[in-house]
Amino acid sequence: MSKSISGDAPASASLQLNELKKYFAANSQRFISELSEFLAIPSVSTDPTLKSECGRCAAWLLSQLQGLGFAGELRFAETGYPIVLAHNSVGLLNTGPISSGARRVSIYGHYDVQPCDPLELWNAPPFSPVLKDGRLYARGAQDNKGQLWYVIKALEFLQTSGALANMNIALCVEGQEENGSAVLAQNLAALKTELKADTLMVCDTGTLSKNVATITMGLRGIAHFTVTVRGPNKDLHSGVHGGVARNPAQELVRLLAALHDESGRVAVAGFYNGVTEPTADETSLAVAGAPTEGEYQQLVGACASGGERDYALAVRGGLRPTLEFNGVHSGYGGTGSKTIIPALAFAKISMRLVAGQDGAQVLKMVCDHLIERAIGVTLEITEKLVGGPAIIVSPQSESVRRIVPALTEMMGCAPIFRWEGASIPIVSELTKVSGAEPLMVGFGLEEDNIHAPNESFAIEQFERGFIYVVQALLALTKVVQRD
Amino acid sequence: MSKSISGDAPASASLQLNELKKYFAANSQRFISELSEFLAIPSVSTDPTLKSECGRCAAWLLSQLQGLGFAGELRFAETGYPIVLAHNSVGLLNTGPISSGARRVSIYGHYDVQPCDPLELWNAPPFSPVLKDGRLYARGAQDNKGQLWYVIKALEFLQTSGALANMNIALCVEGQEENGSAVLAQNLAALKTELKADTLMVCDTGTLSKNVATITMGLRGIAHFTVTVRGPNKDLHSGVHGGVARNPAQELVRLLAALHDESGRVAVAGFYNGVTEPTADETSLAVAGAPTEGEYQQLVGACASGGERDYALAVRGGLRPTLEFNGVHSGYGGTGSKTIIPALAFAKISMRLVAGQDGAQVLKMVCDHLIERAIGVTLEITEKLVGGPAIIVSPQSESVRRIVPALTEMMGCAPIFRWEGASIPIVSELTKVSGAEPLMVGFGLEEDNIHAPNESFAIEQFERGFIYVVQALLALTKVVQRD
Repeated sequence: MSKSISGDAPASASLQLNELKKYFAANSQRFISELSEFLAIPSVSTDPTLKSECGRCAAWLLSQLQGLGFAGELRFAETGYPIVLAHNSVGLLNTGPISSGARRVSIYGHYDVQPCDPLELWNAPPFSPVLKDGRLYARGAQDNKGQLWYVIKALEFLQTSGALANMNIALCVEGQEENGSAVLAQNLAALKTELKADTLMVCDTGTLSKNVATITMGLRGIAHFTVTVRGPNKDLHSGVHGGVARNPAQELVRLLAALHDESGRVAVAGFYNGVTEPTADETSLAVAGAPTEGEYQQLVGACASGGERDYALAVRGGLRPTLEFNGVHSGYGGTGSKTIIPALAFAKISMRLVAGQDGAQVLKMVCDHLIERAIGVTLEITEKLVGGPAIIVSPQSESVRRIVPALTEMMGCAPIFRWEGASIPIVSELTKVSGAEPLMVGFGLEEDNIHAPNESFAIEQFERGFIYVVQALLALTKVVQRD
Repeated sequence: MSKSISGDAPASASLQLNELKKYFAANSQRFISELSEFLAIPSVSTDPTLKSECGRCAAWLLSQLQGLGFAGELRFAETGYPIVLAHNSVGLLNTGPISSGARRVSIYGHYDVQPCDPLELWNAPPFSPVLKDGRLYARGAQDNKGQLWYVIKALEFLQTSGALANMNIALCVEGQEENGSAVLAQNLAALKTELKADTLMVCDTGTLSKNVATITMGLRGIAHFTVTVRGPNKDLHSGVHGGVARNPAQELVRLLAALHDESGRVAVAGFYNGVTEPTADETSLAVAGAPTEGEYQQLVGACASGGERDYALAVRGGLRPTLEFNGVHSGYGGTGSKTIIPALAFAKISMRLVAGQDGAQVLKMVCDHLIERAIGVTLEITEKLVGGPAIIVSPQSESVRRIVPALTEMMGCAPIFRWEGASIPIVSELTKVSGAEPLMVGFGLEEDNIHAPNESFAIEQFERGFIYVVQALLALTKVVQRD
């Protein structure tokens, strides 16, 4: 079997696809059961009370990789959010230079998951996985435990078939992707040797539909903060004090509303510093793969009139920076009325940043903008966080070029190219330190409800991911004799 | 004793004050213990799950009044929010015309209380009264159970002293004041005979400081609604959809911010229809009794720059209508960040209305204004409620004139006159149906935290209220021989 999956002979490609499907069919029940074990660990990195669960999750993952014959270890375990490092060579992690004859792939993923709030909207407890109608439901079912699991099961296949013996594969799985990747970001220099690679493979993105593969060509960076407006030192009676006391909810709303102008553009001076207009090529490639506004509304159930109205949907959503309100809270929220002037109001705000923007500087400009404009209240900025910068994949990428044929064969049509709005903050830093080309292909779908209640992942998408990773690793590590 | 408290001889006033103080000192422990029983009943009228507690509270109150020899009954008990009607004559409630020789006083109060949210800010459970440093802490300790209880204890004194025998006093205590007074409002016509009086006494207002008595000359009306902005049918990933999907939090904030202009004026066309400018007399009387902006900030801990900046503090807070945000909620509110575009956002909004405004019409104009301006989202208006209209007491009021000497003697200085911002929605309707002059004097202080956590009432203010009610009822019912 090892010959047919080495990928040397294009003629054997269909045979290999059938073998992969057979292997998947024979083992899928076990895959789901293992993944369910992974999903049952509530590794929410933003919740300090669940820190020990993150450590438990990392240990579980390491033991799985060791079971496949990988050498591995937990690094920075004292932080509570260990990084799982593993390599397919027995013994020390790769420390030598990469020879032209041994192309190396580093795989990045994360074992932490988003919070589950609002819990009451889940049909089943988020950490008790349920298989229903071909989908596995749980927090992390797709993002990123589900997508990471098909990667690991592809490695299992390559191990079983013997192909892994000729490969040079490293894994780096962190536990803080949903909370700023602090431990990994602060220790990148120390991991330079372990991460060094030709390709940085990331399976943490989505695809437009199940009938097409999507190569993500760009990811936006992220910055986040919480702004709290404090007025009276307690809730006041809105009758007695209405029209006299400055209302923090009114003041917050006034400040927030002024952060965007009529066209949806962010109205903070300097916000767009360093941002270059998308090229005609980028725009046309992005638009080609994107839904129309009508299709978007159908798909997502939301009106597509957010963001900067002067740009096309795909450009607004991937190639332009944004500022979004993730949460706004003040005063009474229960049934009926409670006639108060709230003592405080707060908003949780995140920004998606593109190439050319300095996250720390943008964050400062937005916060200063708010502070300067506040009237009659005290403003507090907390929970400031700047993620990695934006990332753009070159159209000349060798890694992209190598996987296109496999994706085309597998899906029966050419892949589409997408500039995605989401950020995987650390990827930009990882590409720099690893010297690798980023390669972002994932099989998530809109209907997976990532970051929302009732997250799930379709088993057929899991299978596609499994097949993709096997074929991509064969293509990426193949030695090409140059003339 | 009955002679000295009949109030006929001004010379005996100080004697009477001493007697009242002695009676209070001898009985205050019992008063507090009875009030604590009253406060232990969680009669929150806005919470449907506490409906039966409202019924229990009404029954308890009736039994207390019957214990004082009052004839009484629970009316409209089938609604779950009975109205307690009582009269000091044994037998039927007064049904005959009021003779010039028997001036009648109807007393209005309410036994329901505000919700307790946010519960975590209370130092002790809100329905387990605690006496500490001369203050009784509990939800309702002041508003209105505490103030109602000194009224009832004043009636007890008048009963004990024999003075009540010459009086004609009715009580009407409802259980929905904090939730729109629906049962009472809908049945006013049926209660016309029972409520008919010369004076409608209300002890549900506050005073500027403990060293002065305050006569409330005006109350604003109220209207309330909840507006919900619905966008995507679930929370979306703000990276994937940021810049494309219309964000309901952003849209709500935009709509709310546009409800006031730069000067703090409500920017809804027609909102001020029918509102007349305060007269010079009203303005100067109001300003005379009001704190400066600096004093206000000191007293309340809030900046006094809310409302319409073109008017003086006392005018803004009592004689002009307002529109306040009582609550705004959308998306994530927990620790750290959650990068979502929320599926919905809502705000709870109340308006204080002045004479000349039509509550239902104002409510419609504001809601229509929002609906017309919403872009790319669905707007829902719920929990619409229009309270009673505003009320203004005439400076020629006989009732006010009668009590000024007693208040002056009791406090050692003349009372101040205040146009209060709060509404007791039903009072306007009650004055109409009863044909009575409203008389609003109360002893609440800002530090009582009504409508907020850790509500309390000072025992010394309770005593002042007790003394006031005894003296006021003597003055109000005194037969004056006209020449």
